[in-house]
Amino acid sequence: MHILVTNDDGVLSPGILALAQEMQQLGKVTILAPDRNWSASGHVKTLERPLRVKQVVLADQSTAWACDGAPSDCVSLALHGFVEEKIDLVVSGINSYANLGHDVTYSGTVTAAMEATIWGIPAVAFSLDQPDNFAGIVDYCPAARAAKRVAQAVAHYGLPKDVLLNVNIPFLPDDQLKGFRISRMGLRVYHDKMDRRIDPRGKPYYWIIGDSPTSVPERGTDIGTLADGYVSITPIQLDLTAYSLMPEIDTWDWNLELPANHANPHE
Amino acid sequence: MHILVTNDDGVLSPGILALAQEMQQLGKVTILAPDRNWSASGHVKTLERPLRVKQVVLADQSTAWACDGAPSDCVSLALHGFVEEKIDLVVSGINSYANLGHDVTYSGTVTAAMEATIWGIPAVAFSLDQPDNFAGIVDYCPAARAAKRVAQAVAHYGLPKDVLLNVNIPFLPDDQLKGFRISRMGLRVYHDKMDRRIDPRGKPYYWIIGDSPTSVPERGTDIGTLADGYVSITPIQLDLTAYSLMPEIDTWDWNLELPANHANPHE
Repeated sequence: MHILVTNDDGVLSPGILALAQEMQQLGKVTILAPDRNWSASGHVKTLERPLRVKQVVLADQSTAWACDGAPSDCVSLALHGFVEEKIDLVVSGINSYANLGHDVTYSGTVTAAMEATIWGIPAVAFSLDQPDNFAGIVDYCPAARAAKRVAQAVAHYGLPKDVLLNVNIPFLPDDQLKGFRISRMGLRVYHDKMDRRIDPRGKPYYWIIGDSPTSVPERGTDIGTLADGYVSITPIQLDLTAYSLMPEIDTWDWNLELPANHANPHE
Repeated sequence: MHILVTNDDGVLSPGILALAQEMQQLGKVTILAPDRNWSASGHVKTLERPLRVKQVVLADQSTAWACDGAPSDCVSLALHGFVEEKIDLVVSGINSYANLGHDVTYSGTVTAAMEATIWGIPAVAFSLDQPDNFAGIVDYCPAARAAKRVAQAVAHYGLPKDVLLNVNIPFLPDDQLKGFRISRMGLRVYHDKMDRRIDPRGKPYYWIIGDSPTSVPERGTDIGTLADGYVSITPIQLDLTAYSLMPEIDTWDWNLELPANHANPHE
């Protein structure tokens, strides 16, 4: 088995190293990941500029490829032939923070896995539910060991076309991890705000402040599952069609004219 | 009704102007869009740098806001308070080319609408199925008139939480448009390739060449609907959970050890 490992925190982050080391127990590993942080970068296909790739040495003296593109570019490049040997599984992570609910379309970790899924390669995104205010050095090894169990299962059972797994792992030592549970996407509550500032030349600029989102820990969701101390495994499909809504929209009148009180024409 | 208009081709592109002009017949319009092309940029939340916004004058002498962020940043900025008046509807487009099948997670046009949906604001993405080899000046007006009909219907019937509409419009004059049809996401076939080149200093660089994707024009899909001459309306949900797969994955054994012949440890 040949496993491609990527992430969105950058190739030199500790999470990808811990993941790659566990994956080496399952097969041959190639690491091709961004050369810097691409958090909240979305599903990117870089077309307007060429990509550069260079070899780097990781903390354990293994080698990896560092690319100046997005996580999804790394997967795309690898599958387009930069990596010559056939790839059987793509794993992405371990992201430093959880990717829950609506995070999935923003997340570079998850969109890297999406790219592989579009190519028809089984893919799993791994994220660690690190607390925001954790001051110490994070140990990614328990999460990486849990990731290995999931990757093994995917290699054994396979994944249907068009589906990837989004896996979130509690920030707990091995003996406190309660197990693995299948969950649905839950509800994130974003607390972003806009901060308007004036530059030294007197012109405004705007920060979007990504304060940590909170979540509704409903049972059965990724959020609730994590909160209960289980590894949350959410199967994610790339068919986003809202099938249940199709019959209702099919009854809409496309020729209706809105009543005058609905409109408020701009002068 | 107050309508926010954005796009991913850039605020000065003709598609957004045609769309905004039709939207002005339905309500007050504010245009806040990227200052340049963000195609295939994905669902972005720009956190690492501040955003700049400047006022620009469009070809019809109306004013718009041009932002140096992604399409989803534009929507986020507007809803965070850059636009003070309450926004009732967000429309994105008209994109120069169709956004079909798996295009939706890459597309700046669609991810701008996703951003609004996450905020709980009804949103529609509009794209024109312009042929690749079209040499003339594209007339966006028929597509904009079709977009107005869809926006009217959304204003009248509403959209459920967590659902947006992805609308693709055939490249046809009004009298050849056959009507409006609800469709599911179809299957895109991507023809990207990697082009490895050597720079003047002897180092390699890699272009991902986004050759136009083709599609499988299956009946009932966005692709088949467009090919038949209808406006394709696909309801897109942001809950990506593959519910139908959950019971099966729930039976997986997370403690299995792969047989030795499965593994091929990296030396």
